[in-house]
Amino acid sequence: MGTGPVRAEIIAVGSEMLTPDRTDTNSLFVTARLNDVGVVVQAKSVVRDDLAAVSVMLREALARADVVILTGGLGPTDDDVTRDAAALALGRPLVEHGPTLQAIRARFASRGLTMPEINRRQARLVEHALPLENRQGTAPGQWIDLGSQVVVLLPGPPREMQPLCEAVAARLAERTGGAAVFRRSLRLVGHTESHAEERLQPLYARWTGTAPPVTATILAARGEIELQLSCRSTSADDASAVLDTAVAEVAAAFGDDLYARDGRRLEEVVGDLLRARALRVALAESCTGGLVTSRLTDVAGSSDYVERGVVAYSNRAKVDLLGVPEPLIAEHGAVSEAVALAMADGVRRLAGCDIGLGLTGIAGPGGGSEAKPVGTVAVAVCGPGPRRSVRTWRFPGGRTLVKLFASTAALDALRRAMLGGG
Amino acid sequence: MGTGPVRAEIIAVGSEMLTPDRTDTNSLFVTARLNDVGVVVQAKSVVRDDLAAVSVMLREALARADVVILTGGLGPTDDDVTRDAAALALGRPLVEHGPTLQAIRARFASRGLTMPEINRRQARLVEHALPLENRQGTAPGQWIDLGSQVVVLLPGPPREMQPLCEAVAARLAERTGGAAVFRRSLRLVGHTESHAEERLQPLYARWTGTAPPVTATILAARGEIELQLSCRSTSADDASAVLDTAVAEVAAAFGDDLYARDGRRLEEVVGDLLRARALRVALAESCTGGLVTSRLTDVAGSSDYVERGVVAYSNRAKVDLLGVPEPLIAEHGAVSEAVALAMADGVRRLAGCDIGLGLTGIAGPGGGSEAKPVGTVAVAVCGPGPRRSVRTWRFPGGRTLVKLFASTAALDALRRAMLGGG
Repeated sequence: MGTGPVRAEIIAVGSEMLTPDRTDTNSLFVTARLNDVGVVVQAKSVVRDDLAAVSVMLREALARADVVILTGGLGPTDDDVTRDAAALALGRPLVEHGPTLQAIRARFASRGLTMPEINRRQARLVEHALPLENRQGTAPGQWIDLGSQVVVLLPGPPREMQPLCEAVAARLAERTGGAAVFRRSLRLVGHTESHAEERLQPLYARWTGTAPPVTATILAARGEIELQLSCRSTSADDASAVLDTAVAEVAAAFGDDLYARDGRRLEEVVGDLLRARALRVALAESCTGGLVTSRLTDVAGSSDYVERGVVAYSNRAKVDLLGVPEPLIAEHGAVSEAVALAMADGVRRLAGCDIGLGLTGIAGPGGGSEAKPVGTVAVAVCGPGPRRSVRTWRFPGGRTLVKLFASTAALDALRRAMLGGG
Repeated sequence: MGTGPVRAEIIAVGSEMLTPDRTDTNSLFVTARLNDVGVVVQAKSVVRDDLAAVSVMLREALARADVVILTGGLGPTDDDVTRDAAALALGRPLVEHGPTLQAIRARFASRGLTMPEINRRQARLVEHALPLENRQGTAPGQWIDLGSQVVVLLPGPPREMQPLCEAVAARLAERTGGAAVFRRSLRLVGHTESHAEERLQPLYARWTGTAPPVTATILAARGEIELQLSCRSTSADDASAVLDTAVAEVAAAFGDDLYARDGRRLEEVVGDLLRARALRVALAESCTGGLVTSRLTDVAGSSDYVERGVVAYSNRAKVDLLGVPEPLIAEHGAVSEAVALAMADGVRRLAGCDIGLGLTGIAGPGGGSEAKPVGTVAVAVCGPGPRRSVRTWRFPGGRTLVKLFASTAALDALRRAMLGGG
């Protein structure tokens, strides 16, 4: 293995993982264990139970990667082809391994059974492979050392695969000399992906020159952006130092729009702020239909700070439940900043809470007009104390997306109210 | 394409799907749509955001498959490399497409924004590619006809990818000509997956003998079960006939627990029943935190029949907003059938609606006791007319799962109230 990071590929073998209802999940566990010892996963694949197809996939992966891990296809039946495919790809014969055969026989005997003849093939190893003992099943794993590269065969059932994968990670750690991957997950609101990217460009350029270099991945979902920073190092201190600096640079670029440096979700951050300030909140929603309250109460312990939520879908509910004056609705329309403020005010007063949130809008597909198209949403916060803020948004997308974007904007408005900013 | 089945490979592009916490799921949807038109998926991969790596993967897939579908990497940022990788692998230049550029500019303009310069690259097509219009986002898909093979580029966000994938399946159907896969999606409540499976076993056995045979796939999620029936035939009439019979057999086995024969979600079925009967509903939720109301209002036009929702998290809110008598809470506890009924009654009366729903429970992790452990949820429905029902559930799992299970039970209780059953 060279001086760069050790690069792995994972191949999951099994036709059932190529249907519409199931996919490979073993690779998530394998990836975590590999990352722990500084091995980066650069690609992964799922391939059907076919000797030639598995063999070709393995050869292609070996043209790119230092480590190739195959999971599945080590059972006793005809469609378990991984052993033969590895032998074919590596140009080595399969050899029956006496101690493994004995172990399989003993396993059956311990349950009062005779080993069926078809299980015999599970004792066949690729020539010079090291068997990895499997206490949870019959098929051992195989560690095949090719000098500068390693091929590993692991059984498919997770409870068999996982302990063997731990053993493989320990062996790989000896080769990588201890470098591990360190990560930070930052979260932002108030920017489209492309706007955030423009602002991050100069930082990306700087991070390629740090020691160790920092890699960034940007993801957008429901009005929020997740920025994953990672670096690889043998020293946790070095990694922390460069990541801390990188995080500080992002914070300087985005200010309050950076709401979490530790991957916390927006509803958790809002909940933590409410709890720290001993504040209680009441919510009045219209077009989000309870989604803001539902997200806020997804957090354990949220009953400490969520007093109530009201979904005032009809105008009558706005008047009856929230004390919104009817003339206000007539004058400004139900979707307006004035009504959002009155909803926030009303729910706060009636609940006797510190903070009230009011949200009214048009989720679509019906109900839009030229002046107030579908996606128009007004979000108001009253409190804590005399603080009042309101803002009108225009969100893109269909009903579900407008609800999601609006719920994110509402949670963020609560957060900003507690920070004292805009 | 030859005489055998048309063979596809799927490549998901994105480094974030190579971390321990996330993987590709778009391929499940793509696989379903390809299967529908008789295209078999023989392998799939995830590859990092790297020009050379994506290009190599695409070339390798083209050595094996008739159709290669790439998802992701069509965004505006530097790490969106799929367009360039396809151009490199196919030896064709990228060409800016005027109408697509105009459409992207118009999309920003409709939100009062100017298109950032980096979005311009999303208008670049592989030479001779057909753009696939994306109404949900900026990047069009690309259909690249190579004569005997096809390469397709689709955006990564599911809501953008899925409509384009439908369009791709329709195009592929023209090429595959013959047999298509026909499906029915049935939905059930009130059964665990294994109970449903036991009851279905005799039907499965019968369906292997029909012409054409019917294949069944069972999926469980948030207290609901989806049963997918499919068969492959060159005749839509033959397929319809056997599927109709199979659906009737399931209906006979499950009665009212079968709530949809056409894949409709529970909230849509409830909404359709409310609308057909011209009834209006008001909801009072505690531990679900607004999730029932939010699910019900996910359906377009739900403002016609949802009058209001109240999230009465605190006892005070139950008393103030719903008129639940304080002594009732003291006597039975907030989580009790008596309080659930009083909540349903109260919200119905105050809203002047035909039906009231009351739900109170313990989502956890705190708040449980020996008599009322975490997961205990009481659901009551009052109306239409004098009808009243209440039932106590004990759901497994953590907070999020309890909320989901409880919201499903609540929607189902509304449905049964309108059917007049238990």
